[in-house]
Amino acid sequence: MKNRFMKKVLSVTALSAMLFGTAAGATQNTYVHADDDGDDSEVKNVIFLVGDGMGPAYNTAYRYFKDDMSTKEMEQTAFDPHLVGVQTVYSHDPYHDGGEEDDKENIPDSAATATSMSSGVKTYNGAIAVDMEKENTHTVLEAAKEKGMSTGLVSTSQINHATPAAFGTHDESRHNYDEIANDYYDDMINDEHKVDVLLGGGTDYFEREDRNLAEEFQKDGYDYATTTKEMKKSDSDQILGLFAPVGMDKAIDRPKEQPSLEEMTTTALDKLSKNEDGFFLMVEGSQIDWAGHDNDVVGAMSEMEDFEKAFQKVIEFAKEDEETLVVATADHSTGGLSIGEGGPYKWNPEVIHAAKKTPDYMAKQIVEEGQDVEKVLNKNIEFDLTEEEIQAVKDANEATYEEEDGKVTEVDNQIEKIFNERSGTGWTTSGHTGVDVNVYAYGPQSEMFSGLIDNTDQAKNIFSILEGKDAEGDHEDEDENEDENEDEFAMKSAIYPSGAIFGTLLVGAGAFFVFRRKNSRQ
Amino acid sequence: MKNRFMKKVLSVTALSAMLFGTAAGATQNTYVHADDDGDDSEVKNVIFLVGDGMGPAYNTAYRYFKDDMSTKEMEQTAFDPHLVGVQTVYSHDPYHDGGEEDDKENIPDSAATATSMSSGVKTYNGAIAVDMEKENTHTVLEAAKEKGMSTGLVSTSQINHATPAAFGTHDESRHNYDEIANDYYDDMINDEHKVDVLLGGGTDYFEREDRNLAEEFQKDGYDYATTTKEMKKSDSDQILGLFAPVGMDKAIDRPKEQPSLEEMTTTALDKLSKNEDGFFLMVEGSQIDWAGHDNDVVGAMSEMEDFEKAFQKVIEFAKEDEETLVVATADHSTGGLSIGEGGPYKWNPEVIHAAKKTPDYMAKQIVEEGQDVEKVLNKNIEFDLTEEEIQAVKDANEATYEEEDGKVTEVDNQIEKIFNERSGTGWTTSGHTGVDVNVYAYGPQSEMFSGLIDNTDQAKNIFSILEGKDAEGDHEDEDENEDENEDEFAMKSAIYPSGAIFGTLLVGAGAFFVFRRKNSRQ
Repeated sequence: MKNRFMKKVLSVTALSAMLFGTAAGATQNTYVHADDDGDDSEVKNVIFLVGDGMGPAYNTAYRYFKDDMSTKEMEQTAFDPHLVGVQTVYSHDPYHDGGEEDDKENIPDSAATATSMSSGVKTYNGAIAVDMEKENTHTVLEAAKEKGMSTGLVSTSQINHATPAAFGTHDESRHNYDEIANDYYDDMINDEHKVDVLLGGGTDYFEREDRNLAEEFQKDGYDYATTTKEMKKSDSDQILGLFAPVGMDKAIDRPKEQPSLEEMTTTALDKLSKNEDGFFLMVEGSQIDWAGHDNDVVGAMSEMEDFEKAFQKVIEFAKEDEETLVVATADHSTGGLSIGEGGPYKWNPEVIHAAKKTPDYMAKQIVEEGQDVEKVLNKNIEFDLTEEEIQAVKDANEATYEEEDGKVTEVDNQIEKIFNERSGTGWTTSGHTGVDVNVYAYGPQSEMFSGLIDNTDQAKNIFSILEGKDAEGDHEDEDENEDENEDEFAMKSAIYPSGAIFGTLLVGAGAFFVFRRKNSRQ
Repeated sequence: MKNRFMKKVLSVTALSAMLFGTAAGATQNTYVHADDDGDDSEVKNVIFLVGDGMGPAYNTAYRYFKDDMSTKEMEQTAFDPHLVGVQTVYSHDPYHDGGEEDDKENIPDSAATATSMSSGVKTYNGAIAVDMEKENTHTVLEAAKEKGMSTGLVSTSQINHATPAAFGTHDESRHNYDEIANDYYDDMINDEHKVDVLLGGGTDYFEREDRNLAEEFQKDGYDYATTTKEMKKSDSDQILGLFAPVGMDKAIDRPKEQPSLEEMTTTALDKLSKNEDGFFLMVEGSQIDWAGHDNDVVGAMSEMEDFEKAFQKVIEFAKEDEETLVVATADHSTGGLSIGEGGPYKWNPEVIHAAKKTPDYMAKQIVEEGQDVEKVLNKNIEFDLTEEEIQAVKDANEATYEEEDGKVTEVDNQIEKIFNERSGTGWTTSGHTGVDVNVYAYGPQSEMFSGLIDNTDQAKNIFSILEGKDAEGDHEDEDENEDENEDEFAMKSAIYPSGAIFGTLLVGAGAFFVFRRKNSRQ
């Protein structure tokens, strides 16, 4: 309510910007945030980006990683100018039982946090847009669709994975992948499919023996793409693009047939922006998290780059469009990543730059394709390995394992260890951690997301913005009990003659005040 | 420069607040930040708080730790409502050699970061308010003293430790403790000692065989206190209070003779606030960092609490005073703390609440005082220990060690392990990490510290505020090349009749604009 009130006051400021020219224009932005983005205009489109697992150490590490070594300062990332605060991410109440699967877990998973961000409720780990009672929630994507806006979900995981799923479907468990895929087709709003643009991985779940959702979507007018080329050729407003059986390859390993997150985002923006009523788009850098689970710093930085480029694309779109709100955040942090390990005050990102592929890729070449350890390592790593490092990978490759994937995992671990130790990267877990994550925002209403907020505030803010969008009713009526200050100001400001009198008093006296201050300094 | 410009525009807003009453008053705060603090009035006092080592995971962990288990939501800490952004902390350029002691370290130490925050320059690890060429910098504390303000430094480390030292002294190495202590007495500004209130640990450095600084300070009119009682009894405006030979005990272990950080802060505020020209006070929660180095989660949470209480005291003072800018941040993160370890999605702060003393305290009772392992553990830990846990401590106590402190260290480590494993706390290093840290701000000009800033911006902002404070010259003259927008606005606003005309146009038209918008929604 404070924000809507501010919006009105800012209208006054906006007008003063027209009168005063650039001077007041600059100030208007300063009000919203130290960053020079944002204004008070109506929100037409909402783009919500999630760096899955992108805890604060990832954002800092990526800045170290991207630093231009020829300059004295450490350059900002594309995210940095838009930082507005941080958000808390805990799943449901840490001390209240979160359902069968939850076991009072108080460190969140991606399903619970995505539900919080899509629906504004705290829930249990594993929940896909259902609450603690396993009742379906209402998501911001659904609210957008109900308003006649177009909708899109883009991820590098399978598109029925936890984060996108919690915006477009409902399920009591994230593990019900087939049911979640079905939901994308079966759940309708106003006789339309909920999501117009679905881009990510997941052919295994959409082209099944029991049901072929890809065909069903095509019958309903969706284009279906399984390669970058097919995606770019599509001219339908609706598309299902699935570029891998499950998750896509990590950016650094990704063949050209699989699009980058930026390319998928561009496709989504092209299609969704045709709707004059606007759109809601969720874009997930899904595998920052997967690299974190793997304690793979090479994969993590590669996925951060993929996500940053998509974010840049979105910011470019929003700057051009001027009616698009952009919010980027993370759902939680993964792996307990730290910049520094074991004592030394030094982190060496050049070690990470030396990798041409992820350790996982190399391990598969060695174990699954039977390639020579030394050849694979030397081909894909630009620094000279020590004999001990090579031997450790060889030993892992020659050992016997009980589990089917044991050998790939252990060879992978040994290669990851090379990068972690040489770069000075620390990890504490194969799971998530509870640390607050950064929030970045740009465009109209971006100030709503500033300071310390909870992940449920993401949805609450977006619902509030969507409610205000081309609302049929009068806002003051809807919210009359919410903020009497708002009405008070609206009343005082809405009467033109009073405004003129107030104007004379206000700015005249204001000028006198400034004048007096100026003189008192001399 | 944008900020000084805003200050003037906000003067207009402040006036409108008087005219419009509570409505505009609420808005005025909204401009500054989502938090309802801050206004545009002149800054009289600056209080800068540093949680040494308090990386983002500490802030989150402390929220989990303080959570009221009887409610469904996780309550905010005293810091949370004041979060305005984060700051980068890297020391000098990560890829440029940082001097002899630096060895191209790109993860900062407390000396380098304190120098950045006190002086606005990047420097090498170990530097106490000297730059890369080992030339003395100019610190914000010195700038305050030069303006006739009172000054204070409060810490729970020895008061000549890196963080306070980098505000009040200069040395090429943080390890020159005696020289740094001497500087507090010897370095004068306008024939006065630089720091009026010095409270912390460090009798070993001030009462030396070669020199007794405590006596020297007393001769110059300072009170000298070595206990809480003596400190509270003091009625001089200047005081040296040293409550331990080196660092003070951690809050949870601290005897009553040693004051809390809050008590020292209260004393500092009482004395410093007598100066009508205002004061600069730096308060450090020094041993959050020391607990982090020790990977001691009990000590870390205890020190966070000590720091939070001091912060609350400062906020109370600032709310009452209305002319005090408060900024709280960290210099870096220590230990690679993570909320979650080894897989499980659960962190158990109740384990930490069960400790009555730090593991370090218990280890000293066992090793140095020869007390019984089981008795000490059972007396100081409220949960039932397993036989294995007790045995591990016993084994550590019975082993032989080459280093003098080896036994205390290893017994300490074994007790810490109990808390870390049971609580699910992860650590990656005995040193620091490079992650960005949170920034909290309250009061006039607090909006200057929002978004993503660098640690050098802390000093730059404070210098800029101090420059604006009762400046003798005309600001516009001083900064004439900095911001033509500022001059443009100053010019337009400083002429009263023009102000009246603009006022009429501005708010009148603004009101019309709001009126039109309101109607268009109906």
